[in-house]
This record gives sequence, C-alpha cells and structure tokens, in this order.
Amino acid sequence: MSVVGKRVIRSEAADRVKGAGLFTDDYKYHGMLHAAVVRSPIARGEIKKISSDSILRHEGVKGVFTYKDIPGKNCIPIVIDDQPFLAEKFVNYISEPIGVVVADDRRSARAAAKKIELNIKPLTPLLDPLQSRNHPDIHLFGNDNIFKQMRIVRGDAAKAFKGCDVIIENEYRTPYQEHAYIEPQAMIAIPYPDGSIEIRGSMQCPFYVRKAITTILGLAESKVRVIQCATGGAFGGKEDVPSLLACQVALPAWKLGRPVKLVYDRSEDMISTSKRHPAWVHYKSGATKEGILRAVEAEYVIDGGAYATLSAVVLFRGTAHSVGPYRCENVNVKTYAVATNKVPTGAFRGFGSPQILFAVESQMDQLAERIGISPLEFRKRNILRVGDTTVTGQKLENSVGLEETLDKVVQVSGWSPKASKEDGVGYGLSTIYYGVGLGAGGKALARTGARVILHADGSALFSVGTTEIGQGMTTVLSQITADELGLPLKSVGMLPTDTSRVPDSGPTVASRSTLMSGNALKDACIKIKSVLLEEASLLTNHPISEISIDEGSVFAGNDKLPLLNVIKSCSLKRLPLSAEGWVISPPASFDDSTGQGDAYIVYAWATNLAKVKVTRETGEVTVLKLWSAHDVGKAINPALVEGQIEGGALQGIGYALMEDMTADKNGAIKNSEFSTYIIPTAEDQPEIIPIIVEHPYPWGPSGAKGFGEQPLMGIAPAIANAVYNACGVRVKELPITPEKIWAGLNK
Amino acid sequence: MSVVGKRVIRSEAADRVKGAGLFTDDYKYHGMLHAAVVRSPIARGEIKKISSDSILRHEGVKGVFTYKDIPGKNCIPIVIDDQPFLAEKFVNYISEPIGVVVADDRRSARAAAKKIELNIKPLTPLLDPLQSRNHPDIHLFGNDNIFKQMRIVRGDAAKAFKGCDVIIENEYRTPYQEHAYIEPQAMIAIPYPDGSIEIRGSMQCPFYVRKAITTILGLAESKVRVIQCATGGAFGGKEDVPSLLACQVALPAWKLGRPVKLVYDRSEDMISTSKRHPAWVHYKSGATKEGILRAVEAEYVIDGGAYATLSAVVLFRGTAHSVGPYRCENVNVKTYAVATNKVPTGAFRGFGSPQILFAVESQMDQLAERIGISPLEFRKRNILRVGDTTVTGQKLENSVGLEETLDKVVQVSGWSPKASKEDGVGYGLSTIYYGVGLGAGGKALARTGARVILHADGSALFSVGTTEIGQGMTTVLSQITADELGLPLKSVGMLPTDTSRVPDSGPTVASRSTLMSGNALKDACIKIKSVLLEEASLLTNHPISEISIDEGSVFAGNDKLPLLNVIKSCSLKRLPLSAEGWVISPPASFDDSTGQGDAYIVYAWATNLAKVKVTRETGEVTVLKLWSAHDVGKAINPALVEGQIEGGALQGIGYALMEDMTADKNGAIKNSEFSTYIIPTAEDQPEIIPIIVEHPYPWGPSGAKGFGEQPLMGIAPAIANAVYNACGVRVKELPITPEKIWAGLNK
Repeated sequence: MSVVGKRVIRSEAADRVKGAGLFTDDYKYHGMLHAAVVRSPIARGEIKKISSDSILRHEGVKGVFTYKDIPGKNCIPIVIDDQPFLAEKFVNYISEPIGVVVADDRRSARAAAKKIELNIKPLTPLLDPLQSRNHPDIHLFGNDNIFKQMRIVRGDAAKAFKGCDVIIENEYRTPYQEHAYIEPQAMIAIPYPDGSIEIRGSMQCPFYVRKAITTILGLAESKVRVIQCATGGAFGGKEDVPSLLACQVALPAWKLGRPVKLVYDRSEDMISTSKRHPAWVHYKSGATKEGILRAVEAEYVIDGGAYATLSAVVLFRGTAHSVGPYRCENVNVKTYAVATNKVPTGAFRGFGSPQILFAVESQMDQLAERIGISPLEFRKRNILRVGDTTVTGQKLENSVGLEETLDKVVQVSGWSPKASKEDGVGYGLSTIYYGVGLGAGGKALARTGARVILHADGSALFSVGTTEIGQGMTTVLSQITADELGLPLKSVGMLPTDTSRVPDSGPTVASRSTLMSGNALKDACIKIKSVLLEEASLLTNHPISEISIDEGSVFAGNDKLPLLNVIKSCSLKRLPLSAEGWVISPPASFDDSTGQGDAYIVYAWATNLAKVKVTRETGEVTVLKLWSAHDVGKAINPALVEGQIEGGALQGIGYALMEDMTADKNGAIKNSEFSTYIIPTAEDQPEIIPIIVEHPYPWGPSGAKGFGEQPLMGIAPAIANAVYNACGVRVKELPITPEKIWAGLNK
Repeated sequence: MSVVGKRVIRSEAADRVKGAGLFTDDYKYHGMLHAAVVRSPIARGEIKKISSDSILRHEGVKGVFTYKDIPGKNCIPIVIDDQPFLAEKFVNYISEPIGVVVADDRRSARAAAKKIELNIKPLTPLLDPLQSRNHPDIHLFGNDNIFKQMRIVRGDAAKAFKGCDVIIENEYRTPYQEHAYIEPQAMIAIPYPDGSIEIRGSMQCPFYVRKAITTILGLAESKVRVIQCATGGAFGGKEDVPSLLACQVALPAWKLGRPVKLVYDRSEDMISTSKRHPAWVHYKSGATKEGILRAVEAEYVIDGGAYATLSAVVLFRGTAHSVGPYRCENVNVKTYAVATNKVPTGAFRGFGSPQILFAVESQMDQLAERIGISPLEFRKRNILRVGDTTVTGQKLENSVGLEETLDKVVQVSGWSPKASKEDGVGYGLSTIYYGVGLGAGGKALARTGARVILHADGSALFSVGTTEIGQGMTTVLSQITADELGLPLKSVGMLPTDTSRVPDSGPTVASRSTLMSGNALKDACIKIKSVLLEEASLLTNHPISEISIDEGSVFAGNDKLPLLNVIKSCSLKRLPLSAEGWVISPPASFDDSTGQGDAYIVYAWATNLAKVKVTRETGEVTVLKLWSAHDVGKAINPALVEGQIEGGALQGIGYALMEDMTADKNGAIKNSEFSTYIIPTAEDQPEIIPIIVEHPYPWGPSGAKGFGEQPLMGIAPAIANAVYNACGVRVKELPITPEKIWAGLNK
C-alpha cells in the first residue's frame, strides 16, 4: 500500500495547466462539417410546417435534417422512452430540437439554423408542476403528468404526531441550478466506410451515448464506438444531455459520410440543457421534548420539465434521502416528479437530495430551537450510528462515521452553540448522508468492467468504462492499480474511456467510479498478480505467502529483487499478464409504494458548519468560514478529497446564496449567460476547512466509498441555519438573497 | 459449425470494391506535416558532414532530423540490434536513411531532402555474399560477416554417398524478389499532449513497431499505441520495414508536437525496402537405384544485405526446409546468412524456403531421371507420411496430407508421366512442405491474445494482435468467432488491430494468424459461452449437455429459443459477457549446430503440377495450367484458401519466369519501377486448379493449420521441372528467362 492514501498530483494536472488537454473542440478532422440545432421558440405547440428548402441554397450549407431523416427510432433512450430526438408533431419546451443544419463552418451553420421557417401552432403550456400535476385537461405525460411517484410509509406518522411535543411544518422551495461546467457541451461524429460510427465528445456516460446512437441510426452496438474526450466539468450535466448532442452530430455525419462537430455556445447550453430540478417541499416534523425525532410527513414535488429523462431516478434519491440521516420510526413521505413545458431537468451533484435536505436540515434546527436544545445536541440525539435502521428500514452494519464528522467539526472549529459571538455573525450546522452508487434505483446498471495490460517493460495500461470528469478518477484508479500490481505510480496509465474497450459499465454518476471501477481494476489486477507471485516464488524459492510486491520491488523473505525481473521471466515463459476485471454491486432493494428496502449498498456521511456574517443594512450574507467533515471510508488521495470538499462547498454556496435561475412566463429560461446567472468566483470563497473521516467500507477498494456529490449537499441548509443564527431570519426559499434577508429583517 | 467451412464473402470486400477502405494515406490530420528521407547515395562510406542549415530556410520546411536528435537509442530492434535508425558514422548500403526532413507538404519535404549536402568518404563495399563471407579485411558484421550459420547433421552423409547408385550435384541461384504490394509503405505518427504517441500505418507487426518507437524515443510501452490501417498487401515486406517508417515519422512528430505522415513512392519503396534474399545453393543428393533418397549434402548462402534484420530466422526456415518433404537419414547441410553492402533483405512469403526448395525439387527430378523412374514415382517412394521422421528428427504424428495432395493432383489433372504430349509441352511436379508458425526459430514470440465483447443486443466485437494484410484473416477469424459463440456471422465484427487492445501477440508472419489468433479467440469464446450455456440451462430447464447454440438460436432438447433471450437474461443478471483469450504455441525445438529438433508444431503440405509450353524459337515459357493441391488441415473458408492458392501461384510464376531484380556494380538496385521490374499481370495467369486437402491438425481451430505462404513456394521448381520436361533444358538460376532457355536450346 504505497500510493493509496497519498497526496499524489492528479494525472492530468500538467496538461490542464499547460492548456494541452484534448477537449472536443481541439479535435479537427479533415472534411469536418459543423452542426447547429433548430429549436422551438415556444413552450408548447403543434408543428405545422418546417421550411428548409431555401436554406440549402445558402453558401456553405450542406444539409438540413429533421425527424424524417432518422433511419432508426426517433427517441433519446434514457429511463422512459418519451423524448424524441427531433420533434415530430409537437414541441413541448422552448429550445426543443426540431432540426439540425450542417455547414462548412460553425458560423454558417448557426446563421442557417436561425433562418429555418417554422410554422408552429401555439398550445397552452403548463409551467408550474403543482398546476400540472393531475391537470384535468392538458396531458403532457400519461393522464396525470406525473413521471414518477414514490412513497415512504413507516410506522404511523399521523398517530405519532399526536404524541409529539413539538411540531414544525413549513413549505420550502428551491430553484433551478445550472451546472456551469467550464466546457460547454461538445460532440463529434465520425462515420467510417465499414458502416461503423465513432462518437467523440465531452460526456459522463459513453454507454448512454452508444445506446442513443444505436437507437436513432438503427445500428448494432458493435458498430458504434463512443470515446470520451477530455471533459471540462460535468456535475451531472453531461449524464444524459450528451446523448442528444451525439444524435445531433451522428445523424448528419451518417447521412453525409463526413465528420460533424457541434459545440454549444454558453447561451445555447444554458437555455437548452438540463439543470437541477426546481422543487417544492411541504415538510412537517415532530419531536418529543426530550429531543427525539418521532414523526415526519412530507410531500416533495420536483419539476421535471418536458420529458422524463432522469426524473424517476432523481426522485428515487430524493425520496430515499427525505428524512435525513436520522432515526425516525414514523414516516409518511410522498414524492412526485411532474411534467411541465420547460426544459427537461436532470442530474446534478446530489441528484434530488439537496432540495429536500435543505428542508430536512432547516426543520431540524427549528425543532431544536422549539425544544430548547442546541442544534448540535438535537442532532446528537437522533443521528444514525452503526446498528441503527434508516428510514427505509435498512440496518446499518458498518462504515457509519456521521458522529465522528460531527465531533470533528466541533473539535476543529472550536465552536460551541453556547459561546458568545459578534453581532451579525451566526453558525449553522447540517448533518447529511449520501447513498453511494446507483442503489436500488439503478440496480440493472450496477456492474462495471475494467481491463489491465502489464507490458514486458513493466509499464501498465488500464481501461475502465467510467469517465474522468474532473473528479480525479484517473488519478485515484491509477493509485489503486499501482498498489494492486506493486508498480510505481508513474508506470501506470489509463486509456481514454472507450465503449469498445470494456463491456457496458454503467454511467459515471452517483459517486460510483472509485468504488466500482476501483473494484473492477482490483479484480483484474489480482489475476495478473497471481501470475507474478507464482513466478516470483519460483525465482526466489520462497512460498507465495512470504512474497510481497511493492512499487516495483519484490520482497521474498529477506530477499529483494526488481519486479521487472519477474515480469521478464513471465514474458519469456509467455505467461499472460493482462486480465479483465468485472464487478457486480452488492444487492439493493426498494419498494416504490412503501419506500422500504436496502436502498443503497453503503452511505457516506457529512457534517458542515457554516460561519456567516449578515450585513443588516443590505441583507447581504457573507460566508466567513466553513468546516466540512466527510466520512469517505478511505481517502485514496486526500488532496483530491479535499479538492472535492472545497469545490462542492463553493458550488453549494452558489446554490445557497446567489444562483437564481428561473423561467419567464412563457417558459423560457431567463438567465442565459453568466452576467445574469451569478455563480461564486474565487472572490466568494470563504476559508474552507476540509476534514476527512475514514470509517472503512469493507467492500470498497481499500475501504473507500463514493464521494463526489456529497460536498455540495449540506451547504445550503448549514448556511440557512447560520443565517437564522446570525439574524433571526429563516429563509425557506433558495437562494438566500439579500432581498429576502432584508425583507425578513424589516417585516 | 454453421459458418466455418463456408465460402462467405470476405469482410472488407465491399470496402475494397468501393474504394472506401481507410488506407494510411487516406488519413489526414489537422496540422499534419509530411516527411521525406535523406538517403545514402553510396554503398559504403564514412559520413564526414551533413549540412542541413540552408534547408531549414526553405519555404514550408519545418525541420531536419539526424541521429543527433534521437532521444532514445539509435537502433531498429529486430533480431540483432545492429541496424541504426539513422546512420551515424558510416553508411552501409545505397539508400540507407541518414536523416528525415519534414515540411508542410510532401513535395516540399522531398525537394528539401534532395538538397541536403552529404559529405561521405567512400569505402570499398562488399556486394557478393560469397566474397563477403569470411572476408579477411572488410568487416561488416563481426569478424566473418556472417549474421548466422546453422547446420543439419544427421547420420553420415559422406559415408552414405558411397552407397548411392546415383548422385546429382549442382549449383543453384535465385535472385531478389520484390513484394510489389499494391500500397507502398506508409505511416503516420500523432503525438499527444500527455506524452504518448500514436502510430498508424500499413504494417504486419504492430508490436514490432511499438518496440522500435519505445527504443528510439525512450518511452514506456504504455506510452506508444500502434494501430494498423487498412493494408494494401504485405507478403513479408511489411514485417520489419514499417518499424523504420514509424521511426521516420515518430521522431519529427515527437520533436515538433505535430502529426507527421510519410508515404514512400514506388521507386523509393523498391530501392530501399527489404526483398527476398538472393541465394546461392550447392546441392548434392544421392539415391539408390531402387529410388530411395539416401544422402544430402548442401551449402546454402543467403545475401542478407547490410544489416541482420530477419536474416537469422529466414535462414532457420531455409535450413529446416533444406531437404524437402522426404525421408532422408544422412544429411549434412550448412547454411549461412551473410552481410553485404546492399539493401537489407528480409521476409517474403516462404521466408528462405523457396530458394532452397527450388534446388531440392530440381534435384529430385534429376535423380528420378537418372534412376530411370518417373518424378512422380520417385516422390511416392520418398515422401513423408504419418509416423515418418523429418530430416530434423521430428516424428510426424498427424496431419500429414502430402501423399493425398500428390494423388489428387494426378487424379484431377489426369496427367501420367508416361502419356504422350504435344511438342514443346512439358509437365513438372513439386512436392513441398511448410512448417506452420514461428517454430523453434521464434519460440519466444509464439503466444497470442484476443479479446471478445458480446453486447446486450447480440452483436460481438473482437480484437486480436495479428493483422489483416489481404490474406482474409478478418473473415476467417469472424467465422471462427461466430461459430464459437453461436452467432450469425453478420453479428461479429473485428476492431482494427491496436497494440493497446491486446497483449503482445507476436508478428503476423509464418502463416500463423488463423492458428494462433483463432485459438486465442476460441479460448475467449469458451469463457463467454460457458456463461451463456449456464443461463440457457436455467431458462430451459435442460442440462448444459443437452444445449447447443448455433447462428443465434439456442437448442435445448426439443426446445428452441433465440440466443438473444439468453444474452438479455445474462445482461439483466449483470453477468460478464466479455473475455480475454490467450494461447501459447505447443513446444518446438532446434539445435543450431546439429539441426535436430521438433522444428515446427505442424506442417502443411502441397503438390504442384505445372503444364508449360516452351516456344523453341524464342525460349519463351508459357504456363498453360497449374494444379495446386494443399493440405491445410481444414479450410475455414475454402474460397479464401483458393484465393491464396491462385495469388500465391501467380506470385510464384513471377518468381519462376520474370521477376529479375539485381543490384548494379555499385550495389544499387537496378529495377526501381514496374517498367523494369516485371511482375505477372492478369494476362499472365494460367488456368489454376486449386485443390484443397484436409488432414485436420488436432490443436488447430476446427483442425486448421497455417497456409498463406505455401502456395508460392513450390511453383518455381514445378515450372523448372516442366520446362526440362518440355525442352530438355535444366535452368538452375531463376528466373527462367527466354534468354536462358534459348541459350540452353542452342548450346
């Protein structure tokens, strides 16, 4: 174990610093055309006519494609196949793709796309999910406009409320959040003369993209090869959306036999791609005067936009996390993902949990206050520990470090709820958890492959099916592989993720890459290592049990020899030093109607403590300091874990305080650029104190669990609680803008 | 077994007919530069100065590179590391690479390369291998200018000759043969910002190329990725030479950080790349009057040119095949590969055996005539059969179909040695054999990997480390894979051969692809199929023993269900449907000093009967008809076997009658274009009757052995024997030109 646990520099760091990384737009192919998308100007309507003939006469324009040109099925397959690749008879949201124009250059393509004449008869749109749900007349999805509904029923909440000494009931609202990845969506399709097609682009989920292409082109999976380019951020925004872009380039490329590239500009990206679901939460919680959480009743509605995309699984995670990391025996939670005539919403770091955790943690503080104990003490009395049972009925056997995160935050910060503080300054806590991996909601995809080749010169290459999206997966997996094979880290390299190199390994989402690809790599390395150990045993005359391999050296009893000698000996004997790894996630279960089951294979845990200052004159909130403690099982690379904590915290600060995206009365996203959609910059970053807690997960590689999403999830409620602590204003609708604080202070 | 044995159309046929295949020169990269090679104008000399400064000022020239720029070792690694990538102090053959110029376009690069001023002090070259061998003063290689020498010593030849009734002793000579592939050598290097480099090109042996690049650039194997492009013929000419080209593009690409392409024109290719070794053979054979071959004494010298390249292994094959497919207990053979100051010679279909087989088979006919029996009868009395021992002492256990090939040729042709024939018409026989695979000469490389992924939609993709070079490997391996997995052929596809996809699988030479990659694929498929069978058993309630899978259907007892159902069921259970295959060749052995051992794992066998007409007035030989019977073990695709027979025969006709490449007195190849180097065209093709004989090889896939080279090997001696039969002129030096016949007829 020489490299795992070390703060090694991330693999692609030098490339990024030098600007050398090959992002999608850096690829230029001979004869490549450029695409632009023709989009709906209205939120709901019936397409009467698309006139494109005149466009074809424009300089440089090489083709215009509509649904009529699709050789396969007009569908972007995700969870439910309701979303067309190109609108046929109806449009259902502003910016919905209707056609694709390709031209010799990007400018010509975009100019031509704007000139396509669309004759669309307007229909009344539904823009509010609470109105859309069960709308009597307008049916956007099924008969009730509900993509998915779930429940958690545990104990008897109604009865339990009667025994509660304190009951808190509130409504909470959270807005869109835009991923604001540095690199906008980008994709290239390259058709080959043998009837295959290669897709290269910025993405999280190459296997989703492959499925989209086989669907729209009617091709076998063996004919479609999807390769991830360097990807400049994703955060969930490149889970399902790249499938759309891939289709937008693949169709013209296929039809014209030429490479086609498409890179959205920032505005197109912000208007037309998925965001975090806006949510409405009605939350009622009750506790005894002893500070025991007794009952929860909640209704959670998320606005899915025009098509189902990932809403069903976003809802699953929101539902499973709807009570927070607390013991509670009486629960009645109803959750809904609802269709509206707006841009489809989708995956975003936290995936349906930040919205409801904002409510949960706001409730906890209010309960504590009413009971008359500190938020810290109230949490201490209710948090989950080993041996406890979650709200879904899952018994927690191990790796439950929540209490330690809470204790560490208190200890490191030196904070005490009772300590005196400056005027306008407040502290706020949040304790949260995160179900690692796809869980019961994505069980069928919970398998992952890997491939390792150890060369005769002692260098190794591995391939996995998950992707590097800035989270540091390449580095972490290289560390795992190096240790498993006993190689120095510099001898290990990863190939770009490519669907032709590994079997379908599921998506890169749900903080699953370290866990799943790490385990798959271990599986492959064990096979290779067994060959090396056997050969080392022959060479050294020591039994395998006495042999260890580490950083390029073989230790056998008191002997030491270079691993390269063993590798060369294997090579001479023609022994295979390559292997495939495969891993299936442990079982998970969930009953949609009762919400009971082992929802996830393991949970990561976190406590955040925010110290804020509220300027009474302006209502402005400044986050002064943030302590963020996370039980990650094992930090394969502590520097990367801390980086995730810092990045997630900042994204959480944006969600809490400034990111205010809304749709206008026609259903159009109002904020189409960074001048109107404000995200935190380095200027806004407070001092962040990352704290790593390690309660190893036995099934995880070296004990690691998943981690990428959790840093964002508890930030907004910690800040909201701190704001209340600072100035007595309880804001129940994100973001916590100066206007809302000011209004609260002056009402 | 639905597809194996069938005449399915070759995979790339449509691409080739449409001109759609992506050959190296079809790849155009953004920012790509073009290379040209600076070459030695003299056969031997000392480099005093290379002046390139003025060239750099030429329009479009981007760089000039010499040995000084090589970051790694200045060496093209093949068998012995004697060949520099770029000449340092000495040049050793005309056209030896000294430098590389790169420019914006091909024309500028070539023009600039010609302008480099070279100051080279001439030294006396050695051009004749018989003079070079043990030359007292000039040392081109070691002290004796001998790259390699071998012997076969068996029984006591000197003594045995005393008991022979008939002894025939002759000298034979064979010339260069140029591969004349349709596509000249071509290569591209693409450097990546992460410090890796990709090589794409026309080649047989990607793993050789990788080794060359790691050597000259000093890189780890994991940093070099070599991908074969569609390759327009090879015939051995793209075994080692592509390593040179790869270095010629990799060095400038690495230095300049831009893609670099190099495509030789025909003349550069003919002058500077490897050819079949010219050979000199002294052959003495003795037989009893009963027609039993009793003794052979031979000396075999091949002209290796300036560097060792593959000469040692070419010599091994020539040595092992030096007595032909006959029983002979008393043998004394001495063989030598010798250095000269000419272009290095190398691999060519037959690999050192066609030269000596020309001698062997010419001798056999002469012995028969002197004994007074027919060439057919003489062969009948001496050919190898199951249970016999070869001249290297190898006992033949199985798959010895030589007699059947002889019988079939006689039967199909209706020929009888005693039948009367027209004036000027003659018939000639040859019986030959071919040791399949690398044998003892390349034992360390005799392993091969493969990779198969079966997708959830029932389509499969496989990767191998051997290459498609026109021999039909893709088709044959697809047939094997389809049958092994029980898929329809159309569901199976092969990925381009890529060193990052499979472990080092050795070269694509020695007719080893079907055997080795076929077995490796079988190994992989068996693993996948066992998962399918188990699942099918669960689905059908039949034991695995009752289940078979064929062409997409599963048969279980009387039940039949689509294989896709089983695959989908596996997919739902997340069972892995991908696997690696690995195969190690059975053992082979050879003692260089005695020539004894199991030289090859198995042999393929062939009989050729040529019917020729000699025009007495001109000496011109016309091949009227050719019967060619081959024991291939099993014809996976009979149409492709017949195609190989026809193509090989035509290439053999060229070698026999017209291809007359020589070096001039300065050591320069005289024939630099197809106007001076005459190869057969469709006009020259006689009626060829291919006859397939199948004596299955138990270790081969479906019984197949190797096959690609053998069709050429016995053509020249069959024609020489036919010419003698037609007109009484025994030509002992190839090619059998009209001049030589005329001289023989008129002496």
